[in-house]
Amino acid sequence: MALIVQKFGGSSVSDAESIKRVAKRIVDTRKAGNEVVVAVSAMGDSTDELLDLAHEVTPIPAPRELDMLLTAGERISMALLAMAIKSMGYDARSFTGSQAGMITDAQHGAARIVDVTPGRLRDALDDGAIVIVAGFQGFNRDTRDITTLGRGGSDTTAVALAAALGADICEIYTDVDGIFTADPRVVPRAHKLDRVSSEEMLELAAAGAKVLYIRAVEYARRHGVTLHVRSSFNNNDGTIVYNNSTPDVNGDPVEEPIIAGVAADLSEAKVTVVGVPDVPGKAAQIFKIVAKTNANVDMIVQNVSAAATGRTDISFTLPKSEGQQVLTALKNEQENVGYLGLQYDDQIGKLALVGAGMRTNTGVSAKLFEALFEAGINIEMISTSEIRISVVTRADTINEALRVVHTAFGLDDDNEAQVHGGTGR
Amino acid sequence: MALIVQKFGGSSVSDAESIKRVAKRIVDTRKAGNEVVVAVSAMGDSTDELLDLAHEVTPIPAPRELDMLLTAGERISMALLAMAIKSMGYDARSFTGSQAGMITDAQHGAARIVDVTPGRLRDALDDGAIVIVAGFQGFNRDTRDITTLGRGGSDTTAVALAAALGADICEIYTDVDGIFTADPRVVPRAHKLDRVSSEEMLELAAAGAKVLYIRAVEYARRHGVTLHVRSSFNNNDGTIVYNNSTPDVNGDPVEEPIIAGVAADLSEAKVTVVGVPDVPGKAAQIFKIVAKTNANVDMIVQNVSAAATGRTDISFTLPKSEGQQVLTALKNEQENVGYLGLQYDDQIGKLALVGAGMRTNTGVSAKLFEALFEAGINIEMISTSEIRISVVTRADTINEALRVVHTAFGLDDDNEAQVHGGTGR
Repeated sequence: MALIVQKFGGSSVSDAESIKRVAKRIVDTRKAGNEVVVAVSAMGDSTDELLDLAHEVTPIPAPRELDMLLTAGERISMALLAMAIKSMGYDARSFTGSQAGMITDAQHGAARIVDVTPGRLRDALDDGAIVIVAGFQGFNRDTRDITTLGRGGSDTTAVALAAALGADICEIYTDVDGIFTADPRVVPRAHKLDRVSSEEMLELAAAGAKVLYIRAVEYARRHGVTLHVRSSFNNNDGTIVYNNSTPDVNGDPVEEPIIAGVAADLSEAKVTVVGVPDVPGKAAQIFKIVAKTNANVDMIVQNVSAAATGRTDISFTLPKSEGQQVLTALKNEQENVGYLGLQYDDQIGKLALVGAGMRTNTGVSAKLFEALFEAGINIEMISTSEIRISVVTRADTINEALRVVHTAFGLDDDNEAQVHGGTGR
Repeated sequence: MALIVQKFGGSSVSDAESIKRVAKRIVDTRKAGNEVVVAVSAMGDSTDELLDLAHEVTPIPAPRELDMLLTAGERISMALLAMAIKSMGYDARSFTGSQAGMITDAQHGAARIVDVTPGRLRDALDDGAIVIVAGFQGFNRDTRDITTLGRGGSDTTAVALAAALGADICEIYTDVDGIFTADPRVVPRAHKLDRVSSEEMLELAAAGAKVLYIRAVEYARRHGVTLHVRSSFNNNDGTIVYNNSTPDVNGDPVEEPIIAGVAADLSEAKVTVVGVPDVPGKAAQIFKIVAKTNANVDMIVQNVSAAATGRTDISFTLPKSEGQQVLTALKNEQENVGYLGLQYDDQIGKLALVGAGMRTNTGVSAKLFEALFEAGINIEMISTSEIRISVVTRADTINEALRVVHTAFGLDDDNEAQVHGGTGR
């Protein structure tokens, strides 16, 4: 008997009908002879509705109380899901994050999991019950308070439960068919990947692919959990996110494809600190200032110093939402740093090419730059990791860039993809 | 420093604005130098909305899961209330029924309180915080499951907390000014009672007065908790529900008024079992059949046997909603019991006159019957307790009956009452 963890997001349980559909799918998995543990998000937009309510009451809700409030969302969906399953004649029990043993630190709104003690879940499974767990929520032992895990928390709940219970697989149900070589809404010839390594998945997620949250992929990678990202609207196989230890379907050693996919991200802006004195320690000084604002800096590029001036420019990208505070922080320290000026550009697009095979394949960068050059797309910044190349272009060329790169690397499918809509890539 | 428990119902916290208004009232109580513990219901109609959702998913929701679902309601209101108070600069912490130590039996949907262990609440009070507790919910130690207390559960939560914490008073905030001598929507000259004994309050509640639930009054009576029923829309004194041990405001021993009030109830129907053989044990046989349906039988009247026939009629009242199942149960046993027929009448009204002073005052029944007779209102059934007289009349005469009895016993106020609407009497 296999133990399968399944995660259903808010769009999969948005109303009574979809809850019944999800219940049927869970029951089918049980009928096939598996033990089933389900992590479920709050219904549809209900978390946002609760947030709106909180902001009607006060502009800055107390974090402990906000977590208490938001955890009502999954309580509703998990209870409805459990009663739907029971009405189909199968035993089911719902558990809050606290009851499920999701022990976290006390960081309300963005708690980290410190331990998972799923004793009650194991007991329920041993009784033959299907286990439904509230995603996104946890419990701090010291304060005895309810916490939430932050954005993408339900994915993390599912993966953490899979790890703690030693599940055979963790299925992440979503509104797209799996992980694609590029966003099929932009690149119609994108094709679904049957398999992708967790390393590649991390880079794709970091580069803007929204199907999975980085944190959940990291957790899965660290704990050796195999993920299966698939659609809740059909029974097709989705994409397996495997760890290096995972053999492929035929038991063969895994040969990594050169390129897994291409991702684009329009949510970032570029800050350029102009005329930074070219003396040791200036970059550190600048990024210490930036770090104090808690901004999430992504790419950093320092131009070669112009010998004549003794000054250099440093550019970096960060989420647009964090631009203003970073500019203010830098402005306040202009005299100390001694730079000449600041430039801010929120019309950039970031394209990332990801593939574990890059490690052993030369010429990938050259092929990328050539494809963009031939399409007349200018590259403004470049940054690379072992299995990723990212470039910044003008925002209005990013979709075209995505398509030409997708074609250049032979990723195009013969048929156009079926797009279900939703957030997916 | 006094310790005050305050209970706010759903209509007092129906939206962000009313939550802020309630928060201000709580803060005012704290500012006046009191420790404050608040029991709060779910917002407005949200419990009914959750119930509707459950019934969309399945006609018969599993009780454990239904409790899990419904307890999301107070979780939302209590968190919003706590953050509203915190935004006013006062410390506040919300607690679920489980966190507050409301230990119950495992009867989902109608759990009984078996213990209250408010250690965390006491700690929070000692830290200077205002304590907000989810009404209506509890926790079973054996199953470690969440339970709910059933209808009127939030009143019971408030009273149980007041008893366990040794509160000086338990204030029940509602949408009416207090307990009236009769429903002011029907009897415009009804006046608010400054004080009423818990004994009288029990009879009034049983007779259809809806401001307080019987169960909460019983709990308060058993544990010596003094209640103050008052409006959440103004600062007027409401009605004190005192126990026999409670001295009056001047410290004088309490002299009980003859009549506390008159209540009417249109929710019942009358069943008559016609032609029951007048032999011992027949009544017991009939009510054993009725009891098996879990019907809540109220008044029972057996007519004098007609000597010639050797048969008698037995009538009883019960909630209309339970009529069909009782008729079916009786029909199935007609042969065993040997009665001749059944009559069902759902056009009845029940009027109850309540007053602790009845014990020592004769002539109350006579005055009641005379007032109804003079108004041309026919009495169909009569039943009495030590401090209550109930009569059944035609439903369409019940309001007129209420007014003439109110007048006959000198309860009319000089001015007409201000009615805020709502459920109250």
